[in-house]
Parts: sequence; C-alpha cells; structure tokens
Amino acid sequence: MKPKGLAAFVIAFVAAAPIAALAQGATAPNPPLAPLQEPAKTLPAPYADISPQMQAFIAKPLNPDWNDQWKTGAEARAYADKQAAGVVPTIPGMLSRLHVTMTSTSMGGVHVYVLTPADMPPENKDKVLIHVHGGCYVLFPGESGATEGIMMAGFAHYKVISVDYRMPPEAYFPTALDDAVTVYKEVLKTTKPKDVAFFGTSAGGALTLEMVLRARQDGLPLPGAIAPGTPMSDVTKTGDSFYTNEKVDNVLVSRSGFCHAATLIYAKGHDLSDPLLSPVYGDMHGFPPAILTTGTRDLLLSNTVRVHRKLLRSGVPAILEVFEGESHAQYQFDDTVPETREAFTEIGAFFGQYLGH
Amino acid sequence: MKPKGLAAFVIAFVAAAPIAALAQGATAPNPPLAPLQEPAKTLPAPYADISPQMQAFIAKPLNPDWNDQWKTGAEARAYADKQAAGVVPTIPGMLSRLHVTMTSTSMGGVHVYVLTPADMPPENKDKVLIHVHGGCYVLFPGESGATEGIMMAGFAHYKVISVDYRMPPEAYFPTALDDAVTVYKEVLKTTKPKDVAFFGTSAGGALTLEMVLRARQDGLPLPGAIAPGTPMSDVTKTGDSFYTNEKVDNVLVSRSGFCHAATLIYAKGHDLSDPLLSPVYGDMHGFPPAILTTGTRDLLLSNTVRVHRKLLRSGVPAILEVFEGESHAQYQFDDTVPETREAFTEIGAFFGQYLGH
Repeated sequence: MKPKGLAAFVIAFVAAAPIAALAQGATAPNPPLAPLQEPAKTLPAPYADISPQMQAFIAKPLNPDWNDQWKTGAEARAYADKQAAGVVPTIPGMLSRLHVTMTSTSMGGVHVYVLTPADMPPENKDKVLIHVHGGCYVLFPGESGATEGIMMAGFAHYKVISVDYRMPPEAYFPTALDDAVTVYKEVLKTTKPKDVAFFGTSAGGALTLEMVLRARQDGLPLPGAIAPGTPMSDVTKTGDSFYTNEKVDNVLVSRSGFCHAATLIYAKGHDLSDPLLSPVYGDMHGFPPAILTTGTRDLLLSNTVRVHRKLLRSGVPAILEVFEGESHAQYQFDDTVPETREAFTEIGAFFGQYLGH
Repeated sequence: MKPKGLAAFVIAFVAAAPIAALAQGATAPNPPLAPLQEPAKTLPAPYADISPQMQAFIAKPLNPDWNDQWKTGAEARAYADKQAAGVVPTIPGMLSRLHVTMTSTSMGGVHVYVLTPADMPPENKDKVLIHVHGGCYVLFPGESGATEGIMMAGFAHYKVISVDYRMPPEAYFPTALDDAVTVYKEVLKTTKPKDVAFFGTSAGGALTLEMVLRARQDGLPLPGAIAPGTPMSDVTKTGDSFYTNEKVDNVLVSRSGFCHAATLIYAKGHDLSDPLLSPVYGDMHGFPPAILTTGTRDLLLSNTVRVHRKLLRSGVPAILEVFEGESHAQYQFDDTVPETREAFTEIGAFFGQYLGH
C-alpha cells in the first residue's frame, strides 16, 4: 500500500536523510563546553492566545510543595493520599460534564477503571485506549488517577481503560509497567493491536513509551498509535529545559524536587538510564505513530522534543504540540479549560487517523 | 477528494473542536496577573542528542552585538555590509558542497538569485520555492541573503528563487513584502500556484506569512505550502519566550536588542501590530499547509508556537519542529551541521507531500 499523509512525509524524510549522521546519544563533551550565566528576571504572566482559565493556571506561584524530599514509599503515599482526597470529589462533576460513565473492575488481576463516553461514533466502537496516569510513579492512586482518562473518553469519544497500577509502598520498579502491560495483554484478547492506543502524561507519558519497549521485548504486537504527553523520558536530569525552565515551570519547578525524589523511590536503586525508566534511550525504530504534547514553560520540554526528534530520526510518524506559556502537564489539569479540550481533541483526531490501519 | 493524512487529521480536529471557544487574541488581563521572579541560574551547554558541530553553536557566548541600537537605515546597512563581507566568501564552498548553481538576475524588476540543484528528481522539476531571507528586515543584503536558499536547493532538491528584496536605507515597510510578492506574481506566469512554496527564517519567516496575507488581499491564488522558520510573527514584544529566553538565546539575546531596533527602522512609524508586520494577528483561515521550525532556547519560540496553534485553530494542516537547545535560527547557520541537513530535509519532505495538490 502506498503510504499516505504524515507517513509519506516521514518516509520521504527518512529516505532523504542520512540518519546515521544525525546526532543521537548523551555523551557529555570532554572538555565540557562553557555554561551560560542567566541573570535573574521578572517574567510577566503570558496572555496572548491563552484563555483566561489557562492564564489562571499559568500565573500561579511556584508549587509550594516542590521541594518535598520524600525518602520512602510510605512518605510519598501519605502525600498522594492527601492530594487524592482533593481530587476524588471532583470526579462526579467531571463525569457528568463530559458524559462519561466509570466502572471499577480488574483485568488480569490489575485494577482498572473503564471509562465509556455516552457518545461514541461507529468507527470508534472497536477501538480501546489504554491510559497510564502520571504522578512521578507514586502519586494519583485509585480514582484520582483516572481524570485524564475521563477527559480523553469525553473529548475524543473512545472507550478508555485507565490502569490503576500498583505504586510504592506496595510495589516498585518495574511493577507499574508490568501492570500496564498485563492490561494490554488482556485487551489483545478481544481487540486487534492496531485498534489499541496507549496514552498518558508525565510518568504516564514515560510509561506509554516503556510499554512499547516492553511489548516488543515480550514479543507482543505493537499498538496502532501512542500519545506520550510531556513524558518523563529522561530521569537522569539530562536535557536543556531541566535548567532553562527551572523555577519557571510552576508545577515541577526543579529537576531536583519532589518528582525526582519520587522517581528514586520507585526505581529503588535501579539504573535511572535504563530505557524502561528513561525511555529516550530506548530503540524507537518501528514504534507506532505518536503525538506528543508539552508547553513552552514545561520543565520536560526537552524530554518531549528529544523523544519527538528521536522518533522522526527512527522513521516513525510523529507530531509535536507545544502550548504557549504552559508548565508541566497543565493541558490536562481542568476539563473546563478550552486548551484542555483542544489538546485532547487533537490527540483524538490523531488516533482517528492512525488506529485500525 | 477524500482528504488524506495530516489534512485528514486537521479536518477531524477542526470538526471536533469548538474553535470559537479556543483562546485567541492578545488582550492583556485587567488587573494584570502576578509575574514570576526567576532567579539567576547557570545553564550548562546541552549536549544530549545534539551533534558536536551544533553544540559548538549552542555553547557560544551571547552575541556581542546584541545591544546595537541602530537609529537609521544607514547605520543598520553599515553593520549589514560588514557582516555580509564575512558571509560572501563562504558561498562558493557551500555551492560546491551542496552541488547548487547560483545565477543573479531580476524578475519584475526585483533582484533575485536563482538556485538550481544538480540533482532534481522528476517530480520536483515543475516546482518553485520562493525564499525570503531573514535579518530583521535590514541585514543580509545581496548574495549574503541567499545562503538559506542554497541550503534548501541542496538538501531538498528544488529550484529556489531567493528574493534580494530592497531594505533600509533604500526602502522601508512594506517594500520588502512588495518585492517578494512581485516575484511571486512573476513565478505565477509560468508555474501553477500549487507548485509554489514560500519559505524563510526570522524576518523571512514573517515575510513568508505576510506574503500569504498580501497575496490574499491582492486576489492572488495561494501557494501550495509554506515553511515559516522561527518567524518574527509578533514584533510587539508579546509572547512568553521574549521573557523566558531573554539572555538564554545567544543569537537575538533580548526583545529590546538589535533586532527590535532594526524592525523599528524598517517599520518607519507604521503600527507594529499590523498583520503585515506582526502576522500572528492576521486571519489564517485558508492558509496553505505549513511546517514551522524553532529551538527550545529560541527567543521566538513563542512567536513560532503561537503561529502553529493559530494555524491549527484555523483549520490549516500545520506541523512544528523544535530542536533541542537551539537558539534563534541556528538550524540554518552552517550547512555542514547535521541538524541543518535534518531541518531542510524535513521541510523538503513536507513540500514533497503537499506541493502539486
């Protein structure tokens, strides 16, 4: 079959470019190159082409908990439970606004939420999206992890299975990934791989990429498309925006803050540069078509653009969406924000283009 | 005809999204939102997934001339001539490496360089790319403005016509645009509009967008595709990266530096928010498919992503390429850098997908 559209573009690009000559890898130059001294600055809150609702998120002060340095799974869980207690009461309203029903069940022994939109076009009825939530591998247990799945079901009109993967202190690396892949295997019993997509944000974006790497390791067929949102694709603090957006991103704030502490808890001594923890170092040839989402103030802007570039350099159709002024993962904080609807509508349209083929 | 590929994605997106509800415009909130105080920081030179050749550009100190505050066209031209004297001697080597021939001629009274690659596939032979160079509307006179055109001809294998538009002190706004549109009209005498693309970087990226706005005003058919590279799409200092990347971008450095001074000279008192100077404020419905290119340290990162988003919100197929660690326009500084070849190869592949349809 003659490749079409974006796929044709990528194939033309790959055919034309001497991929081997393109820079890949993370070897620090020796001697090191000179650093740049950036002076202190006042950053006005951006507003152009940004909705007032999103402006309110962008203009928030730095996350007051950014420097929480949890040492154990129990400490992280205590925080996660407190945070979840604030999220869970908002879920009925969200389900109602987005016309989505939520069912708690298990698949292959893994707890999941099945999210079904009231309005599902015929071409979406045989498709399944597997959602892996974010939260630095320790946050958003239970229902509180399902919000992004609800938004996707509601805005993109697909059935979503949101994986309530085990987290510290119950389980550590690679259990989150094991649980997500178990659910994928269960889904494959009734659904063709090309009718399945993986998606998630932050740790969920990393898990999305890790699931593809692990599926290939396990000899499973790959899904039809993926949407890694601002993925924690490199947890070794490598990547320019870990520095340029330090104390600019008001969500993560710092490469050495709570999210890094949480990742160390989850990794439990495992090598952070393992592609199953830092998937930017994985082999991405043959990956499914991908749509990536980030913001200009995102601490993980570089984590995102490096994955985008690596996918293209590996011959994978991949597109990048960057939202003006947004910090880490803000495109999925509130379903009533116009940019949230926009982001999920774009991802849904991308899935509509690639799933089933 | 059934839309395909990226076009299908965009149409699906547009059909699904309530575009009217999406944020657009540049009305400052009243009262203003709280600014963020960013502390002084040390930024290591990024290296992961970046070629050593590009690392060398990224690790350069701030452009020592960033704060030149030219007041007149003559002052700007004196600087431009000095800079051009450094560029022109590099052109024969570049033409030789890239197997491109350059001919100086005029079209409709406008001076142009015709750039012809030795190797042009049959499907490219009836296509013409019109190049409008960058340089804040005052830099890169004569041959020195043709380098990006040479790279495109050499890497993408199309015939390129590079417009040596008049600049201060000879001529001011909107003469650069007039000259570029004159060349387009001449090209249309022998070439179908869908076989033509416009491209350029910085002021050239803005001119690319302005040419589409002006072509529509003049009742001309629109070209088949455009590639606005890190466009000066908003010269009113609006956009978040004017602040976040201040003194991080080592090329432009500041929203109030030489490039702003140059723009004021070119504008000669004209309203800077006119879409023919700040095209992000133009109506982009019906624009040709577009590929945009920028870098994470680019002072015009926001100028670029705002145009990308506005194109998508206007139903235009548009994709965004963001290079790790690069400052303004560095993807087209040196044809021997792997990322330069990559950027132009991608743009060429995009043109290959859309031209002629």
